[in-house]
Amino acid sequence: MADAVLFEFLHTEMVAELWAPDPGPGSGGKKKSLSVLEGLGFRVGQALGERLPRETLAFREELDALKFLCKDLWAATFQKHMDGLRTNHQGTYVLQDNSFPLLVTMGSGSQYLEEAPKFLAFTCGLLCGALHTLGFQSLVTASVAALPACKFQVVIQKS
Amino acid sequence: MADAVLFEFLHTEMVAELWAPDPGPGSGGKKKSLSVLEGLGFRVGQALGERLPRETLAFREELDALKFLCKDLWAATFQKHMDGLRTNHQGTYVLQDNSFPLLVTMGSGSQYLEEAPKFLAFTCGLLCGALHTLGFQSLVTASVAALPACKFQVVIQKS
Repeated sequence: MADAVLFEFLHTEMVAELWAPDPGPGSGGKKKSLSVLEGLGFRVGQALGERLPRETLAFREELDALKFLCKDLWAATFQKHMDGLRTNHQGTYVLQDNSFPLLVTMGSGSQYLEEAPKFLAFTCGLLCGALHTLGFQSLVTASVAALPACKFQVVIQKS
Repeated sequence: MADAVLFEFLHTEMVAELWAPDPGPGSGGKKKSLSVLEGLGFRVGQALGERLPRETLAFREELDALKFLCKDLWAATFQKHMDGLRTNHQGTYVLQDNSFPLLVTMGSGSQYLEEAPKFLAFTCGLLCGALHTLGFQSLVTASVAALPACKFQVVIQKS
């Protein structure tokens, strides 16, 4: 089945396309590319959030929403579950993937670390968009200490 | 399962992103967007062509390669088979999909016809790229007479 690799190939090419040297001055360059990727991810996350099966449209508890991301959203997108979920019980969550599929094809040397952010921006948006559909405003950032593992930090914004 | 819709959502957002009004003069506008989408599709098609199971790496006969696209490539990408394949036996093939998934979400009125090309460019590239991996140079164009049906015309380039 090529379904899973289809998403990964398309993501790779999309990153390559949006990361291409931008000829125009004042275009914002890499920062703009990251926010474009994040925006794409957000809208796909919103749409996926509406389509994924879930028992109730509104999760009462934040933690349930986060578990939904770690299990259902991750399975739908990456055919696996997140490896770890930690929280400080004050609205901050750390989601750990020990072998993040969109980083697996990169080399694992530390010289590739600076290339990682462009492969994480879409997924940060994806998580944020899915949470938005579930009724939670959030800030999502990602960090990599050792490829291909990565952590997504989700901070729920209280209204 | 959201795998299939994941590709469709990502494709939709990618088209929207690449179709956004381009602020720079001399940027090429819509024509450039179409060729960017086609180029993305080409590279994904190349990669998919290498991954899809097939009995032999080199198809001796053009027709076998075209059947592979209609069956295996279409199944991997759209979870269905192409509805028809015709040829003039001189290197020109017409592949018909009576309900092309990337057009299904559009309205079916004729007023939407002019919007169709941007939803076909990626797939034209996909077919061309997969054929390239199979050892055939081609020109691929698409046409729509009545949404959501469409035809892809493949002209094999003799070397």
